[in-house]
Amino acid sequence: MGSRGEGAQRAVRVPEGVDPEVPQGGRKRPFGGLAARRAALLTPPHPRRAASGGRTPLAARGPRRSGLRPRLYRGRMPYFDAASAAPLHPVARQALLAALDEGWADPARLHREGRRARLLLDAAREAAAETVGCRPDELVFTPSGTHAVHSGVSGALAGRRRVGDRLVVSAVEHSSVLHAGEAHAAAGGTVTEVPVGRTGAVDPETFAAELRGPDGGAGAGAAGSGVALACLQSANHEVGTEQPVAEVAEACRAAGVPLLVDAAQSLGWGPVPGGWSLLAASAHKWGGPAGVGFLAVRKGVRFAPQGPSDERESGRAPGFENLPAVVAAAASLRAVRAEAAAEGARLRALVDRIRARVPELVPDVEVVGDPVRRLPHLVTFSCLYVDGETLLSELDREGFSVSSGSSCTSSTLTPSHVLRAMGVLSEGNVRVSLPAGTTEADVDRFLAVLPGVVSGVRDRLGTGAPVPDGGEDLVVDALGKRCPLPVIELAKVIGTVRVGGTVTVLADDEAARLDIPAWCEMRAQEYVGATPSPRGGHAYVVRRLS
Amino acid sequence: MGSRGEGAQRAVRVPEGVDPEVPQGGRKRPFGGLAARRAALLTPPHPRRAASGGRTPLAARGPRRSGLRPRLYRGRMPYFDAASAAPLHPVARQALLAALDEGWADPARLHREGRRARLLLDAAREAAAETVGCRPDELVFTPSGTHAVHSGVSGALAGRRRVGDRLVVSAVEHSSVLHAGEAHAAAGGTVTEVPVGRTGAVDPETFAAELRGPDGGAGAGAAGSGVALACLQSANHEVGTEQPVAEVAEACRAAGVPLLVDAAQSLGWGPVPGGWSLLAASAHKWGGPAGVGFLAVRKGVRFAPQGPSDERESGRAPGFENLPAVVAAAASLRAVRAEAAAEGARLRALVDRIRARVPELVPDVEVVGDPVRRLPHLVTFSCLYVDGETLLSELDREGFSVSSGSSCTSSTLTPSHVLRAMGVLSEGNVRVSLPAGTTEADVDRFLAVLPGVVSGVRDRLGTGAPVPDGGEDLVVDALGKRCPLPVIELAKVIGTVRVGGTVTVLADDEAARLDIPAWCEMRAQEYVGATPSPRGGHAYVVRRLS
Repeated sequence: MGSRGEGAQRAVRVPEGVDPEVPQGGRKRPFGGLAARRAALLTPPHPRRAASGGRTPLAARGPRRSGLRPRLYRGRMPYFDAASAAPLHPVARQALLAALDEGWADPARLHREGRRARLLLDAAREAAAETVGCRPDELVFTPSGTHAVHSGVSGALAGRRRVGDRLVVSAVEHSSVLHAGEAHAAAGGTVTEVPVGRTGAVDPETFAAELRGPDGGAGAGAAGSGVALACLQSANHEVGTEQPVAEVAEACRAAGVPLLVDAAQSLGWGPVPGGWSLLAASAHKWGGPAGVGFLAVRKGVRFAPQGPSDERESGRAPGFENLPAVVAAAASLRAVRAEAAAEGARLRALVDRIRARVPELVPDVEVVGDPVRRLPHLVTFSCLYVDGETLLSELDREGFSVSSGSSCTSSTLTPSHVLRAMGVLSEGNVRVSLPAGTTEADVDRFLAVLPGVVSGVRDRLGTGAPVPDGGEDLVVDALGKRCPLPVIELAKVIGTVRVGGTVTVLADDEAARLDIPAWCEMRAQEYVGATPSPRGGHAYVVRRLS
Repeated sequence: MGSRGEGAQRAVRVPEGVDPEVPQGGRKRPFGGLAARRAALLTPPHPRRAASGGRTPLAARGPRRSGLRPRLYRGRMPYFDAASAAPLHPVARQALLAALDEGWADPARLHREGRRARLLLDAAREAAAETVGCRPDELVFTPSGTHAVHSGVSGALAGRRRVGDRLVVSAVEHSSVLHAGEAHAAAGGTVTEVPVGRTGAVDPETFAAELRGPDGGAGAGAAGSGVALACLQSANHEVGTEQPVAEVAEACRAAGVPLLVDAAQSLGWGPVPGGWSLLAASAHKWGGPAGVGFLAVRKGVRFAPQGPSDERESGRAPGFENLPAVVAAAASLRAVRAEAAAEGARLRALVDRIRARVPELVPDVEVVGDPVRRLPHLVTFSCLYVDGETLLSELDREGFSVSSGSSCTSSTLTPSHVLRAMGVLSEGNVRVSLPAGTTEADVDRFLAVLPGVVSGVRDRLGTGAPVPDGGEDLVVDALGKRCPLPVIELAKVIGTVRVGGTVTVLADDEAARLDIPAWCEMRAQEYVGATPSPRGGHAYVVRRLS
């Protein structure tokens, strides 16, 4: 399967000399250009000034001079992509700065700088373990959440090689889990993806059945099923739906299968329900620095680290410890947790407002994900007849930074694997994830701006007025046309056939497979099915019901 | 083989409540305790103060209040372990702080924060590539130098699987290279270690012969030799000896074998001579932050990244980019390079002074490594009849932070693999590596303190006065005694046998294998050889010559 995760969104190529701060056609503000700042960032200052700790041109342009700072930061303009990365929490920044002074040395050394680093590392591990809910010696720091997942999956699979080679994962895991699964399959292992319902959650019973093996066998012993490891995220990164971790953990316990929980999206909001065997997380999701992940492996879980051996982090995460970042990660997790209940409730209400208002304000929208069992800060919706990349770019021009799982914003030109697994509309997809501190006014402004942005995109794509109805069955050739054009073509002509008649859309864009059925559901038309088309792609048949 | 690298020094276990800043028996300075600081580091401040950017207790204890800062930093007390990790360069600190503001977002995203991060990442890559001497699209950022080596070795071996499965490395590579070799061997591959001479350098001809294969075959084509990859460090991390990279690169070119150069220790001092195919480096060695390595792979080198796939860093380094640290790493490399010629010459003279003075000031010392073809800032020597861990601890008490390759300071209880490969004395081993800014006064004070420290350790171990000579052959039972006791026992009794008579030392400490022959060479006695002893360990036979 073509899994698509956090990192897959196509990178925009900004030509040399173009300042990404300046909206197209906008005026460049004096002194504020990134080109100048990045030149300053990478140019060594005069050695004497640097040695004396003197201010460099960059330092002189630092945080205090607000006129020279990008106007986006510190909540001045709404950044709504916290699920990708959150700005550094003030506590993380302070801890990082202090640990840069205290903790730059090698914690494996015997000298005082080394011992000081070792104490900081131990203290960070204790703090992190307490927040995660495990023993300090069960937790190691990794260079990223992705590394934590890769190491956790490969180590647990190798540790239980004798039990079997089956890996069971939900279909909506983060790409790091799915990629680890692909590597396992490429090495001869078996990977089973547990499907999800329309809200994006797995059914615990379905998951449990996979643990019992294809023949339904084994029951309490794992030997019969051959399942070495199960993986389930705590909450989905694209639609926010919480997974039934406690129930699945209980099923895993009953089947004798260890459960790895990818807690990247939720750990800042609270501990993962007990019963997990391995847990992975990523600090930059909760306002910690980049470069730090956690991998916790409960005592008693068979675990055999893969790859070259290394003395550091119990042999589970090779390489010199990124100590300042580790300290900052642990400190910021504590800090965000202290604020999580209050801030979570506040953001939950803001997201509720988005979930309720968007369908009222914008026609032909599908809000996806579980409305209740969800992350507090995240909501995803899709807009019919809209090109996701244009929508993102128009929202960006209005000052709103969001993310999308639409096919046209991914490097693979396929819709997000999460939306596909859920079977929901993918065109014009928008993920809004609010960072801590988002205000009601930010959200209101978003809701004020969105309808005009969507209708502007739709107008330009020419969804047009329907033609009078009553005609014969039609075939629409949308081969070579990219999302959302096949759906737009369908919508244009459906009114021209008689009720009971069909429109057949020929399309080779991957998103059509998801979006034409989703359109039918939204418009109460009948989706008859798809057959391979002789000229490539598929023929999607839709019957007009009303 | 029991390879031992940078990270293998045994971590000291400081009991809870003991402040590592306070020498044993010393007085604890008020307010300066690490326990208080680390508590502050990891405790979230009052949310309101944090949110408003207010100063936390930690911030209030920050860099400006010098009375509360550890007295070690900013060159106040000599830190002589720069080859393990160097304090953050001021330019790195400034770049890091700026990039924390500018570059926290996901560079794969389309919104303005993402585009800004992407531009910073691209600029850092251009700067790093320029300094390394390669094209930007040939260089990726990894989470550490160890990761760069692991990925580089596994990717190059996999890319040339059809050519063969042989990996040729020098015997004195960093542990990350040797561990990658062990993993290759465990997977069925072949690893050949090229020996080094007494200075620690490989002989280019010997290296070239290994590339031609065991049968001397193949010549220009690699098919006959089956060598998939060769690895050679630019300079040794324990003794500072520069390797003949240009000559070996030429031999590799002639044999059609790609050469991976681990440039971790030298990149801050200057570019690696051309001809390499892959290059690995580590930012915290040149005053960049932890958490960043470089891996450069020349265009045309067959390379197949191993492990789960990932969209980031050309698929060669999975996980969210550690962008602020990457920017700081590139900026500080430029900065240290700008100062490298002048600072290198200055430190080279200081090291020359240590190399010349230590043998004059301290009896029974062997200074190891090449005196000329070497890193500017690093010197290693070993002291007979001295326990390395005690020596480190006494130097630490005097304020000097150094490192050691002695067996008693390693977790494996074996001497450093580098010293073993060189065949030099390992007991009482000290590595001095000077950070930029080390003063003549620092070095003079070290030279003033060292003789007393060494003789103090020797006195406590009781090297004692020799017994009158003329007696029969002797057998000394040192089984169960740890380094340096077997050599001390030998030295005590050698004078008691007649000239031409022998002393047989029974010892099971790993270091004896290295240190008894080394002692014989230093003392102009004859090392006859070793045979396995029936009670475990070996019987080392030494003939008295004078």
